[in-house]
Amino acid sequence: MALQTFKANTTWSGKGVYVESTARNFKVSMDEPKELGGTDKAMNPVEMLLASLGGCMGICAAAFAGPCGVDLKGCSVDIEGDLDPDGFLGKDLSVRKGYQEIRCAMRIDSPSPKENIARLAAMIEERCPVSDTLAGVPVKITAG
Amino acid sequence: MALQTFKANTTWSGKGVYVESTARNFKVSMDEPKELGGTDKAMNPVEMLLASLGGCMGICAAAFAGPCGVDLKGCSVDIEGDLDPDGFLGKDLSVRKGYQEIRCAMRIDSPSPKENIARLAAMIEERCPVSDTLAGVPVKITAG
Repeated sequence: MALQTFKANTTWSGKGVYVESTARNFKVSMDEPKELGGTDKAMNPVEMLLASLGGCMGICAAAFAGPCGVDLKGCSVDIEGDLDPDGFLGKDLSVRKGYQEIRCAMRIDSPSPKENIARLAAMIEERCPVSDTLAGVPVKITAG
Repeated sequence: MALQTFKANTTWSGKGVYVESTARNFKVSMDEPKELGGTDKAMNPVEMLLASLGGCMGICAAAFAGPCGVDLKGCSVDIEGDLDPDGFLGKDLSVRKGYQEIRCAMRIDSPSPKENIARLAAMIEERCPVSDTLAGVPVKITAG
Protein backbone atom coordinates (compact mmCIF):
# COMPACT_ATOMS: atom_id res chain seq x y z
CA MET A 1 0.00 0.00 0.00
CA ALA A 2 2.96 2.29 0.73
CA LEU A 3 2.81 5.37 2.95
CA GLN A 4 -0.65 6.71 3.78
CA THR A 5 -1.37 10.01 5.49
CA PHE A 6 -4.10 9.90 8.13
CA LYS A 7 -5.61 13.23 9.18
CA ALA A 8 -7.63 14.84 11.95
CA ASN A 9 -8.68 18.36 12.89
CA THR A 10 -9.38 19.78 16.32
CA THR A 11 -11.42 22.91 16.93
CA TRP A 12 -11.82 24.67 20.28
CA SER A 13 -15.47 25.34 21.06
CA GLY A 14 -14.87 28.79 22.53
CA LYS A 15 -16.29 27.57 25.85
CA GLY A 16 -14.01 26.47 28.67
CA VAL A 17 -11.60 23.77 27.51
CA TYR A 18 -14.17 21.75 25.53
CA VAL A 19 -12.88 20.69 22.08
CA GLU A 20 -14.00 18.52 19.19
CA SER A 21 -11.79 16.49 16.89
CA THR A 22 -12.86 15.13 13.52
CA ALA A 23 -11.34 12.52 11.22
CA ARG A 24 -13.07 12.07 7.86
CA ASN A 25 -16.80 12.25 8.71
CA PHE A 26 -16.40 11.14 12.33
CA LYS A 27 -16.28 13.32 15.43
CA VAL A 28 -15.18 12.89 19.05
CA SER A 29 -15.40 15.37 21.93
CA MET A 30 -12.94 16.01 24.73
CA ASP A 31 -13.18 17.94 27.97
CA GLU A 32 -11.50 17.79 31.37
CA PRO A 33 -12.95 16.80 34.73
CA LYS A 34 -13.69 19.72 37.05
CA GLU A 35 -10.51 19.21 39.10
CA LEU A 36 -8.47 19.75 35.91
CA GLY A 37 -10.39 22.89 34.90
CA GLY A 38 -13.13 21.52 32.65
CA THR A 39 -16.85 20.86 32.72
CA ASP A 40 -16.55 17.04 32.46
CA LYS A 41 -18.65 16.61 29.32
CA ALA A 42 -16.36 14.03 27.67
CA MET A 43 -13.26 11.96 28.31
CA ASN A 44 -10.03 13.92 28.31
CA PRO A 45 -7.22 13.61 25.73
CA VAL A 46 -4.98 11.39 27.84
CA GLU A 47 -7.92 9.03 28.39
CA MET A 48 -8.64 9.13 24.65
CA LEU A 49 -5.02 8.15 24.00
CA LEU A 50 -5.59 5.03 26.16
CA ALA A 51 -8.91 4.45 24.36
CA SER A 52 -7.14 4.53 20.99
CA LEU A 53 -4.47 2.10 22.21
CA GLY A 54 -7.08 -0.36 23.50
CA GLY A 55 -9.09 0.08 20.31
CA CYS A 56 -6.06 -0.73 18.21
CA MET A 57 -5.30 -3.86 20.21
CA GLY A 58 -8.94 -4.98 20.02
CA ILE A 59 -9.04 -4.46 16.27
CA CYS A 60 -5.75 -6.33 15.89
CA ALA A 61 -7.24 -9.22 17.91
CA ALA A 62 -10.29 -9.38 15.65
CA ALA A 63 -8.23 -9.06 12.46
CA PHE A 64 -5.47 -11.54 13.37
CA ALA A 65 -7.58 -14.22 15.13
CA GLY A 66 -8.32 -16.10 11.90
CA PRO A 67 -4.72 -16.17 10.64
CA CYS A 68 -3.60 -17.40 14.10
CA GLY A 69 -6.18 -20.21 14.18
CA VAL A 70 -8.12 -18.59 17.04
CA ASP A 71 -11.90 -18.85 17.20
CA LEU A 72 -12.42 -15.51 18.95
CA LYS A 73 -15.48 -15.45 21.22
CA GLY A 74 -14.61 -12.26 23.06
CA CYS A 75 -11.80 -9.80 23.66
CA SER A 76 -11.34 -6.94 26.06
CA VAL A 77 -8.41 -4.82 27.13
CA ASP A 78 -7.94 -2.85 30.35
CA ILE A 79 -5.55 0.02 29.79
CA GLU A 80 -4.08 2.29 32.43
CA GLY A 81 -1.38 4.91 32.47
CA ASP A 82 0.45 6.88 35.15
CA LEU A 83 0.70 10.64 34.72
CA ASP A 84 1.52 13.39 37.18
CA PRO A 85 -0.52 16.54 36.37
CA ASP A 86 2.05 18.67 38.23
CA GLY A 87 4.18 18.54 35.06
CA PHE A 88 1.78 20.05 32.55
CA LEU A 89 0.21 22.34 35.15
CA GLY A 90 3.69 23.80 35.67
CA LYS A 91 3.75 23.13 39.43
CA ASP A 92 6.91 21.09 38.98
CA LEU A 93 8.59 21.42 35.60
CA SER A 94 11.01 18.58 36.38
CA VAL A 95 8.06 16.16 36.20
CA ARG A 96 7.35 14.45 32.89
CA LYS A 97 4.32 16.08 31.21
CA GLY A 98 3.00 12.91 29.63
CA TYR A 99 2.53 9.32 30.71
CA GLN A 100 5.38 7.70 32.60
CA GLU A 101 4.13 4.16 31.95
CA ILE A 102 1.16 2.52 30.24
CA ARG A 103 -0.08 -1.00 31.06
CA CYS A 104 -2.48 -3.14 29.03
CA ALA A 105 -4.16 -6.32 30.24
CA MET A 106 -5.75 -8.25 27.37
CA ARG A 107 -8.34 -10.97 27.88
CA ILE A 108 -8.83 -13.28 24.93
CA ASP A 109 -11.86 -15.56 25.20
CA SER A 110 -11.52 -18.55 22.90
CA PRO A 111 -11.85 -22.36 23.02
CA SER A 112 -8.87 -22.66 20.61
CA PRO A 113 -5.53 -24.29 21.57
CA LYS A 114 -3.46 -22.26 24.03
CA GLU A 115 -0.53 -22.04 21.64
CA ASN A 116 -2.74 -20.40 19.02
CA ILE A 117 -4.00 -17.89 21.57
CA ALA A 118 -0.39 -17.19 22.61
CA ARG A 119 0.50 -16.67 18.93
CA LEU A 120 -2.36 -14.18 18.60
CA ALA A 121 -1.28 -12.28 21.73
CA ALA A 122 2.28 -12.11 20.40
CA MET A 123 1.08 -10.89 17.00
CA ILE A 124 -1.02 -8.13 18.59
CA GLU A 125 1.99 -7.02 20.63
CA GLU A 126 4.27 -7.02 17.56
CA ARG A 127 1.90 -5.38 15.10
CA CYS A 128 -0.39 -2.93 16.95
CA PRO A 129 0.23 0.43 15.21
CA VAL A 130 -0.74 2.62 18.18
CA SER A 131 1.43 0.65 20.60
CA ASP A 132 4.32 0.87 18.12
CA THR A 133 3.81 4.63 17.75
CA LEU A 134 4.02 5.05 21.54
CA ALA A 135 7.57 3.69 21.41
CA GLY A 136 8.34 7.18 20.09
CA VAL A 137 7.54 9.20 16.99
CA PRO A 138 8.72 12.62 15.78
CA VAL A 139 5.94 15.20 16.35
CA LYS A 140 6.53 18.43 14.40
CA ILE A 141 4.48 21.42 15.53
CA THR A 142 4.01 24.71 13.69
CA ALA A 143 1.94 27.69 14.83
CA GLY A 144 0.35 30.42 12.76
CA MET B 1 -1.16 16.30 42.80
CA ALA B 2 1.40 13.50 42.42
CA LEU B 3 0.97 10.48 40.17
CA GLN B 4 -2.54 9.77 38.89
CA THR B 5 -3.63 6.63 37.07
CA PHE B 6 -5.95 7.20 34.12
CA LYS B 7 -7.90 4.19 32.85
CA ALA B 8 -9.82 2.95 29.85
CA ASN B 9 -11.37 -0.32 28.73
CA THR B 10 -11.89 -1.64 25.24
CA THR B 11 -14.37 -4.36 24.34
CA TRP B 12 -14.65 -6.06 20.97
CA SER B 13 -18.25 -6.07 19.73
CA GLY B 14 -18.11 -9.59 18.30
CA LYS B 15 -18.86 -8.17 14.85
CA GLY B 16 -16.10 -7.52 12.34
CA VAL B 17 -13.41 -5.29 13.81
CA TYR B 18 -15.80 -2.82 15.49
CA VAL B 19 -14.76 -1.97 19.08
CA GLU B 20 -15.82 0.40 21.84
CA SER B 21 -13.57 2.03 24.41
CA THR B 22 -14.78 3.60 27.63
CA ALA B 23 -13.11 5.91 30.14
CA ARG B 24 -15.14 6.70 33.27
CA ASN B 25 -18.70 7.20 31.98
CA PHE B 26 -17.66 8.18 28.44
CA LYS B 27 -17.55 5.97 25.34
CA VAL B 28 -15.96 6.16 21.90
CA SER B 29 -16.28 3.73 18.99
CA MET B 30 -13.65 2.61 16.50
CA ASP B 31 -13.84 0.71 13.24
CA GLU B 32 -11.76 0.54 10.06
CA PRO B 33 -12.58 1.73 6.56
CA LYS B 34 -13.55 -1.03 4.14
CA GLU B 35 -10.11 -1.12 2.49
CA LEU B 36 -8.60 -1.99 5.90
CA GLY B 37 -11.15 -4.72 6.63
CA GLY B 38 -13.87 -2.85 8.55
CA THR B 39 -17.38 -1.52 8.04
CA ASP B 40 -16.43 2.17 8.37
CA LYS B 41 -18.79 3.00 11.24
CA ALA B 42 -16.29 5.16 13.17
CA MET B 43 -12.79 6.61 12.94
CA ASN B 44 -10.00 4.10 13.33
CA PRO B 45 -7.53 3.93 16.23
CA VAL B 46 -4.67 5.69 14.44
CA GLU B 47 -7.05 8.53 13.56
CA MET B 48 -8.23 8.60 17.18
CA LEU B 49 -4.59 8.92 18.27
CA LEU B 50 -4.32 12.07 16.10
CA ALA B 51 -7.69 13.26 17.48
CA SER B 52 -6.39 12.90 21.04
CA LEU B 53 -3.19 14.79 20.19
CA GLY B 54 -5.13 17.67 18.62
CA GLY B 55 -7.57 17.65 21.53
CA CYS B 56 -4.72 17.91 24.00
CA MET B 57 -3.16 20.83 22.13
CA GLY B 58 -6.53 22.59 21.90
CA ILE B 59 -7.19 22.13 25.61
CA CYS B 60 -3.68 23.38 26.42
CA ALA B 61 -4.36 26.47 24.25
CA ALA B 62 -7.60 27.20 26.12
CA ALA B 63 -6.04 26.55 29.53
CA PHE B 64 -2.79 28.48 29.00
CA ALA B 65 -4.15 31.47 27.03
CA GLY B 66 -4.93 33.50 30.18
CA PRO B 67 -1.55 32.93 31.88
CA CYS B 68 0.18 33.90 28.58
CA GLY B 69 -1.83 37.12 28.23
CA VAL B 70 -3.66 35.84 25.14
CA ASP B 71 -7.29 36.78 24.52
CA LEU B 72 -8.18 33.57 22.67
CA LYS B 73 -10.89 34.04 20.04
CA GLY B 74 -10.39 30.74 18.28
CA CYS B 75 -8.02 27.81 17.99
CA SER B 76 -7.79 24.90 15.63
CA VAL B 77 -5.19 22.27 14.90
CA ASP B 78 -4.69 20.20 11.74
CA ILE B 79 -2.94 16.95 12.55
CA GLU B 80 -1.59 14.42 10.09
CA GLY B 81 0.57 11.35 10.35
CA ASP B 82 2.33 9.06 7.89
CA LEU B 83 1.84 5.32 8.32
CA ASP B 84 2.45 2.44 5.94
CA PRO B 85 -0.21 -0.29 6.47
CA ASP B 86 2.14 -2.86 4.89
CA GLY B 87 3.85 -3.08 8.30
CA PHE B 88 0.93 -4.11 10.51
CA LEU B 89 -0.69 -6.10 7.69
CA GLY B 90 2.51 -8.17 7.58
CA LYS B 91 3.13 -7.57 3.88
CA ASP B 92 6.54 -6.14 4.70
CA LEU B 93 7.70 -6.72 8.28
CA SER B 94 10.67 -4.38 7.82
CA VAL B 95 8.22 -1.46 7.66
CA ARG B 96 7.42 0.39 10.90
CA LYS B 97 3.96 -0.65 12.17
CA GLY B 98 3.05 2.73 13.62
CA TYR B 99 3.39 6.33 12.54
CA GLN B 100 6.69 7.38 11.02
CA GLU B 101 6.03 11.10 11.54
CA ILE B 102 3.21 13.26 12.90
CA ARG B 103 2.73 16.94 11.98
CA CYS B 104 0.54 19.51 13.73
CA ALA B 105 -0.38 22.93 12.35
CA MET B 106 -1.94 25.15 15.04
CA ARG B 107 -3.92 28.28 14.24
CA ILE B 108 -4.34 30.67 17.15
CA ASP B 109 -6.86 33.45 16.53
CA SER B 110 -6.28 36.37 18.90
CA PRO B 111 -5.90 40.17 18.79
CA SER B 112 -3.24 39.97 21.54
CA PRO B 113 0.43 40.95 21.03
CA LYS B 114 2.39 38.56 18.81
CA GLU B 115 4.92 37.84 21.53
CA ASN B 116 2.15 36.65 23.85
CA ILE B 117 0.80 34.37 21.12
CA ALA B 118 4.31 33.04 20.52
CA ARG B 119 4.64 32.39 24.27
CA LEU B 120 1.36 30.46 24.22
CA ALA B 121 2.46 28.38 21.22
CA ALA B 122 5.74 27.58 22.97
CA MET B 123 3.95 26.63 26.19
CA ILE B 124 1.59 24.27 24.32
CA GLU B 125 4.57 22.62 22.65
CA GLU B 126 6.42 22.24 25.98
CA ARG B 127 3.52 21.06 28.10
CA CYS B 128 1.07 19.04 25.97
CA PRO B 129 0.85 15.66 27.73
CA VAL B 130 -0.13 13.64 24.64
CA SER B 131 2.65 15.16 22.52
CA ASP B 132 5.11 14.46 25.34
CA THR B 133 3.90 10.85 25.60
CA LEU B 134 4.49 10.36 21.86
CA ALA B 135 8.19 11.06 22.43
CA GLY B 136 8.14 7.51 23.80
CA VAL B 137 6.61 5.70 26.76
CA PRO B 138 7.00 2.13 28.06
CA VAL B 139 3.90 0.08 27.13
CA LYS B 140 3.64 -3.17 29.10
CA ILE B 141 1.24 -5.75 27.70
CA THR B 142 -0.03 -8.88 29.43
CA ALA B 143 -2.44 -11.45 28.02
CA GLY B 144 -4.72 -13.84 29.85
